[in-house]
Amino acid sequence: MTEDELIAEVFRPLATGPGADDLGDDAATIAPDGRELVVTCDALAAGVHFVADDPPEAIAAKALRVNLSDLAAKGAEPFGYVLALALAPGWTVDWARRFADGLAADQSRYGIALLGGDTLRASPGGGTMITITAFGHAERIVRRRTASPGDIIIVTGTIGDAALGLKCHLGDAMPALSAPSKAALIEAYLRPTPPVTCWRAVAAHASASMDISDGLLTDLAKLTRTADVSAAVDLANVPFSLAVQDAIGLAPPLRDLALTGGDDYQILATVPPTEADAYIASCAALGTNAVAIGKVSAGPPAVRTFERGVETTITNGRFNHFG
Amino acid sequence: MTEDELIAEVFRPLATGPGADDLGDDAATIAPDGRELVVTCDALAAGVHFVADDPPEAIAAKALRVNLSDLAAKGAEPFGYVLALALAPGWTVDWARRFADGLAADQSRYGIALLGGDTLRASPGGGTMITITAFGHAERIVRRRTASPGDIIIVTGTIGDAALGLKCHLGDAMPALSAPSKAALIEAYLRPTPPVTCWRAVAAHASASMDISDGLLTDLAKLTRTADVSAAVDLANVPFSLAVQDAIGLAPPLRDLALTGGDDYQILATVPPTEADAYIASCAALGTNAVAIGKVSAGPPAVRTFERGVETTITNGRFNHFG
Repeated sequence: MTEDELIAEVFRPLATGPGADDLGDDAATIAPDGRELVVTCDALAAGVHFVADDPPEAIAAKALRVNLSDLAAKGAEPFGYVLALALAPGWTVDWARRFADGLAADQSRYGIALLGGDTLRASPGGGTMITITAFGHAERIVRRRTASPGDIIIVTGTIGDAALGLKCHLGDAMPALSAPSKAALIEAYLRPTPPVTCWRAVAAHASASMDISDGLLTDLAKLTRTADVSAAVDLANVPFSLAVQDAIGLAPPLRDLALTGGDDYQILATVPPTEADAYIASCAALGTNAVAIGKVSAGPPAVRTFERGVETTITNGRFNHFG
Repeated sequence: MTEDELIAEVFRPLATGPGADDLGDDAATIAPDGRELVVTCDALAAGVHFVADDPPEAIAAKALRVNLSDLAAKGAEPFGYVLALALAPGWTVDWARRFADGLAADQSRYGIALLGGDTLRASPGGGTMITITAFGHAERIVRRRTASPGDIIIVTGTIGDAALGLKCHLGDAMPALSAPSKAALIEAYLRPTPPVTCWRAVAAHASASMDISDGLLTDLAKLTRTADVSAAVDLANVPFSLAVQDAIGLAPPLRDLALTGGDDYQILATVPPTEADAYIASCAALGTNAVAIGKVSAGPPAVRTFERGVETTITNGRFNHFG
């Protein structure tokens, strides 16, 4: 299959918006909308962010969702993306079709469309690599730097599933963990489910926000540095799924990995106290559980963690995509 | 150097626009401009689109310019880009700094700024890969499909330098070719010089346009398929640089490679006959030579080539980035 055939047969059906011009041109257009355009870019490489023989549909979903979580955290309504797909030697048409099926499913799920992109061969000896630049519209982007002392720290969904799921996925067996718990954790790693629709709640109520990609406490530390504030987290309030609770019950040190491991793709927001209930209610109405886990205060950037009122130290067990 | 340090020290100085928020956030913003936003995405992989030990400044320039040529061909004024940089094992801070220096030089040259992006490790065993999504504004995008019978086919710059330059660069020595000619060809391959400012001429005068990335006749054939027209090219009018003329003089079959080889990154436009002189004059005023090489006619999609009025057949010697 040539590049032109791959584009025409596999990817053109995904280019459902008018600006994509059926992928038959050098560039796409985005019409003015009155709102600000919000742009984010996240790339995934085989052997770094996913396992080369993961299901292609799951790789596609992950590549899109790690970008959609950024848009949601900025209070932006997603509408489209461009894709650069570098195919490893030995790629098959079946793989490409299944990858496109994964994109198509998420396009329906999230109401977005492919705008354009590039297909190319990966470097000799290298693996598949996927770069997505995703677009949304926002009345006002919600930044990280705008967290204020007194704000409540609120997270969506559950924390740590993917970090523990990666351990299982890589064969770190956790023998005592039940098969359903293990399957749930692996699924969370393979197919994160960011609360994409919660962009509305963020836009309406949050003072600052970011997505959790490098681990809850790791990312909260970044937020405190950007906003020049301090944060205190009550660990008893951090939402763990039943599967993560199972794993921690069997091996208590896994809790620190859950708190600092990556790939949650949930929203970490700071919300003025007067808005916190409304934010949580708005997330709930949008289908996502959100819970208060701590508070912002003045002071040098730091994340302090407490258990039953006693300050405690967390070991950083995070998975580092980069270093 | 951690990812955060790399971003802060090496890439943040490139994020000179307000929407980039100093690369300190999950996403960038692009304010509404009244015009359409034009988006293009081209990626380069080591060992496919460049040689891993090419000068990092040149790799950076090429990665940007292959995108800027797309915008110019669409009649769009460039203003920014996002960058995903996957670094191969063994990357050095010196390499990254030189790569950023190359970006900085082109930012000044073309009046653009880094908006955001991602840095990551490349797949184990793989090479460096660079994905750029570039943005411009246009009153009306100039498509490929809008070429009409009677239009004049006009190209900017010179054709074939990069395809012959790649041959030299890969060590296909062309022993009889003079050292200055060889150096000029290699430079054209390493650092293409698309006529970025000619977006104004395209927007004002062209009926259809595309950039030449896969070879003049190869890309013209694509244009005829998209627009459902036929094209006739007078080979005597195709602009060859002195270095390409030298090479063809020594080895006449190289002419076909020059006509079908990739990486020119010039603009291939069709222009109504009443606008042709104005288009050429406008390009000249913008610092770029443009010449008429043929004509569009009705008929099934095809590219016919003529020499002194006699139809001739070209052997496709093009370099294929994909297959």
